[in-house]
Amino acid sequence: MLKIVIFGTGNLAKHLYTAFLKADGVDVVQVVGRNVKELQQFSEYSTISNDFNAIIDADVYLIAVKDDAISEVSEFLMDKNGIVAHTSGAISLNTIQAANKGVFYPLQTFTKDKEVDFSNIPICIESEGKDSFETLNTLSKSISENVHYIDSEQRKKLHLAAVFVNNFTNYLYSVGEELCLEEGLSFDLLKPLIMETAHKIQNMSPQDAQTGPARRNDIKSMKSHQELLNKKEHITLYKLLSQAIIQAHEEEL
Amino acid sequence: MLKIVIFGTGNLAKHLYTAFLKADGVDVVQVVGRNVKELQQFSEYSTISNDFNAIIDADVYLIAVKDDAISEVSEFLMDKNGIVAHTSGAISLNTIQAANKGVFYPLQTFTKDKEVDFSNIPICIESEGKDSFETLNTLSKSISENVHYIDSEQRKKLHLAAVFVNNFTNYLYSVGEELCLEEGLSFDLLKPLIMETAHKIQNMSPQDAQTGPARRNDIKSMKSHQELLNKKEHITLYKLLSQAIIQAHEEEL
Repeated sequence: MLKIVIFGTGNLAKHLYTAFLKADGVDVVQVVGRNVKELQQFSEYSTISNDFNAIIDADVYLIAVKDDAISEVSEFLMDKNGIVAHTSGAISLNTIQAANKGVFYPLQTFTKDKEVDFSNIPICIESEGKDSFETLNTLSKSISENVHYIDSEQRKKLHLAAVFVNNFTNYLYSVGEELCLEEGLSFDLLKPLIMETAHKIQNMSPQDAQTGPARRNDIKSMKSHQELLNKKEHITLYKLLSQAIIQAHEEEL
Repeated sequence: MLKIVIFGTGNLAKHLYTAFLKADGVDVVQVVGRNVKELQQFSEYSTISNDFNAIIDADVYLIAVKDDAISEVSEFLMDKNGIVAHTSGAISLNTIQAANKGVFYPLQTFTKDKEVDFSNIPICIESEGKDSFETLNTLSKSISENVHYIDSEQRKKLHLAAVFVNNFTNYLYSVGEELCLEEGLSFDLLKPLIMETAHKIQNMSPQDAQTGPARRNDIKSMKSHQELLNKKEHITLYKLLSQAIIQAHEEEL
């Protein structure tokens, strides 16, 4: 049985906690965090503490706090024998102030109160020693079938790629919503298209899936689209993305 | 029984044809197109013709050809009593050169050889008279439960919104793929995130779903992301999209 302590009471901490509670071979012995009110929800099945000097011995200490606080939290774990692992895409392994460093990064977006099925979520792990790797691997496999060894440099790039396909894509969705509302139309009209666009690239490279006026270099359509846009920043974005698509496919030739 | 003739042999024509073959109350009496080879695939269940002067009488003539050819095809239908409807998001109702004009625009992306379930796809219809509306409505409802009356101005904006959430989003996916490949990582790692990002806004406004460094105005993270990017156009895009997200959420306050 792997004993783990989770640090943090936010979205990710909660989702990981719920997943590990159901997992075989894992026992969440403690949840540690500053927010006493938020800590209560973990009290039914685990010990809780807001005292970072009263941490129970465990095999893995999972730090699921804001990036800026990872180093500080890890300092409380300097003398522990277990693996001290953070859960961030953007932070190096070496940010951890402890002997036995690790990373346990689930590559997914987590929404409050929306249940998560971890089984298909990529868990990106990193460690210094082979033993630590085996432990993190076992821990990951208790909740996901999609576990990968990814080093700090790769992970940073992956996290950046995630910003493009998640944060920036979501912004494009919000532009779509805005354009619908300008015409008194429901954003619901775009939802099947959004799902299909995401679905399409599950079995096809996005490079090959590219369609639209820019892909065809259809200057007339692009011009009339720009005339329909009211906001200057939407026009700039339209031009830049169209130009990028044209250029990406010129390079192909 | 509604009799229809389909013009065109491309992706959309094929998908519509397949859907109408299965639909109750619709009979595709003819498929008309220039490409004799492509026409063959429609010959088992319908009459085919490459002669635009030998068009069978029907209730609806569905023009599923390239935008630029819509007007020309419609000229062959000047003397017909049935509704002459195009299937394009970007073209006005009045582009059609016939007495009884209509639009039948399925708002979806269609992939070659990938089966389409029309039942949930928004069909945007437009017409001049009430009778034409009823006919187009009946035709739409034979394949979809998601039928809307959308005028030409609204439809153009909707089509533009579709470019943002489909074409531009797909380009962001391709940037994600490129960044993965730079590190020798599989694009598969991003696929669960891409699905969840699309899934999230099915029940939540993208405005509220926005996360990431730009949403938090986390200048340090945005700076280190830009340092990781090799291509100038990716840096420009990163800056512009981040700035747009920051601005959109400043306006909220």
